Amino acid sequence: MTEKRKIAVLGTGLMGAPMARNLLKAGHTVVVWNRSADKAEALAGNGAQVAASPADAVSGADVIVTMLADGFATGPLIEDSVVQAAVSPGAVWVDMSSAKPEHAREQGAVLAAIGIAHLDAPVSGGTKGAEAGTLAIMVGGTEEAFAKVRDVLEAMGRPVHVGPSGTGQLSKLANQTIVAVTIGAVAEAMLLVQQGGADPAAVRAALKGGFADSTILQQHGERMTEGNFEPGGLTKFQIKDLDNTLSEAGRLGLSLPSTQDVRDRFVHLMEKMDGGELDHSALYLELKARNGMMS
Amino acid sequence: MTEKRKIAVLGTGLMGAPMARNLLKAGHTVVVWNRSADKAEALAGNGAQVAASPADAVSGADVIVTMLADGFATGPLIEDSVVQAAVSPGAVWVDMSSAKPEHAREQGAVLAAIGIAHLDAPVSGGTKGAEAGTLAIMVGGTEEAFAKVRDVLEAMGRPVHVGPSGTGQLSKLANQTIVAVTIGAVAEAMLLVQQGGADPAAVRAALKGGFADSTILQQHGERMTEGNFEPGGLTKFQIKDLDNTLSEAGRLGLSLPSTQDVRDRFVHLMEKMDGGELDHSALYLELKARNGMMS
Repeated sequence: MTEKRKIAVLGTGLMGAPMARNLLKAGHTVVVWNRSADKAEALAGNGAQVAASPADAVSGADVIVTMLADGFATGPLIEDSVVQAAVSPGAVWVDMSSAKPEHAREQGAVLAAIGIAHLDAPVSGGTKGAEAGTLAIMVGGTEEAFAKVRDVLEAMGRPVHVGPSGTGQLSKLANQTIVAVTIGAVAEAMLLVQQGGADPAAVRAALKGGFADSTILQQHGERMTEGNFEPGGLTKFQIKDLDNTLSEAGRLGLSLPSTQDVRDRFVHLMEKMDGGELDHSALYLELKARNGMMS
Repeated sequence: MTEKRKIAVLGTGLMGAPMARNLLKAGHTVVVWNRSADKAEALAGNGAQVAASPADAVSGADVIVTMLADGFATGPLIEDSVVQAAVSPGAVWVDMSSAKPEHAREQGAVLAAIGIAHLDAPVSGGTKGAEAGTLAIMVGGTEEAFAKVRDVLEAMGRPVHVGPSGTGQLSKLANQTIVAVTIGAVAEAMLLVQQGGADPAAVRAALKGGFADSTILQQHGERMTEGNFEPGGLTKFQIKDLDNTLSEAGRLGLSLPSTQDVRDRFVHLMEKMDGGELDHSALYLELKARNGMMS
């Protein structure tokens, strides 16, 4: 049984809007705010209350959900003294934006200093997952805060508590790193079989269900050999994620050779070829160029 | 409906024996031969006829299946003039061993010269897949030869025709390359989240079903953070596969940077740490050593 709560949703863009609708469907009271007001007002028809300011939205809320571009966008809201004064004691602030782990830790500390719990809870699954309520939700913060909002998060997807503050964002970076390096692996496999005279689509079908299989092999592999690089996931965002991964690895004193290598190759792709605006499966083009196959 | 055939199975080891049993279950007449005769004789109880020599086994067979260590083991059988004389015109020789693509092409040419069709049809799925009859079977050779044996192969798994002679083996190498590079990706992700204070098992659970998910993440990732490197797939065989991949890539004039890098790291692991006898997920140990974490 889900206890009905009053939930503020700040940031009702492509992801935040369907997430707010799923909270409404679950029976919660939802107050929305968005920097461009029209995107918040569009949710009134779904039963949301529209707030005139972030402080109005968070006032009296049991749970505050932020879904913004990154930690640079979330920070000023969390640090705003008017917003801080409006937050109820006992509220939990759940930042579902994708951000640097250091931003999560800093913002968690800012809220902890005034007695407000904070969770970093970035998601994976895209707009489809947001609409279907099937997002993977990686949650960092205290067990206690997680227990208070778990049922709320379940209206939007599948929340898993992974560790202390910042580790939700760290898990998202780990996710993005695996995606990037696997794209590199699939690119080499696809180029090899194609140049060797095999039918890449038949090879993907043959490998289905085995140890080499993945969504990246089936979806990105098809994009590569079909030459379809419409985004999807932009290479410039892939680079941002990889830079954040390497920055956090550096803080931990870790060298991650495959991550570093694929990051450098994505940068080469962006600077010399795609301007950052193609799908990240376009790493295939970088591999072809490296092999003298892009005239 | 499967037309019943007379099938010779040469090589009835860990993989060949359950594959022969599945051919028997499908109603075919199966004649087995193995270098160590006891492994062939063990199949008599399942209804197999036991041949005294490879030539006896292939005599009168509609389909010849070889399941040996590699192309160096298969070559002498295919080139043996007594064996060649015993093969029926119209028979199809299906080499299901994992071998170099160049061996497949050479052996296919030897048989073509005497009017015998040859398919290279290596498998993926291990002894479990062989027993369950669910092997992924990657088939190179002519469409015509594939059509003649497709239903026979279906008794052992899921055959997919991927292209001309050698491309079955090439697809297997592509499979192994993706596995190896993905192991490298998962190792970096696991080390990052573990050093960053997250619970790696919770992270794997959180990532399940998303773009980063794979059997490698779930199974090999667990081996890494649990420190369980009992094989499984040996690092020395992983290196053999990667060397074969790079050799074939070289023949095609291709540079495969991620494959080359992970191959060099597996060699470092074998030479300095595991002697080639640990599971290939032990690449995690190489990453830890590189980061000064193996005292």
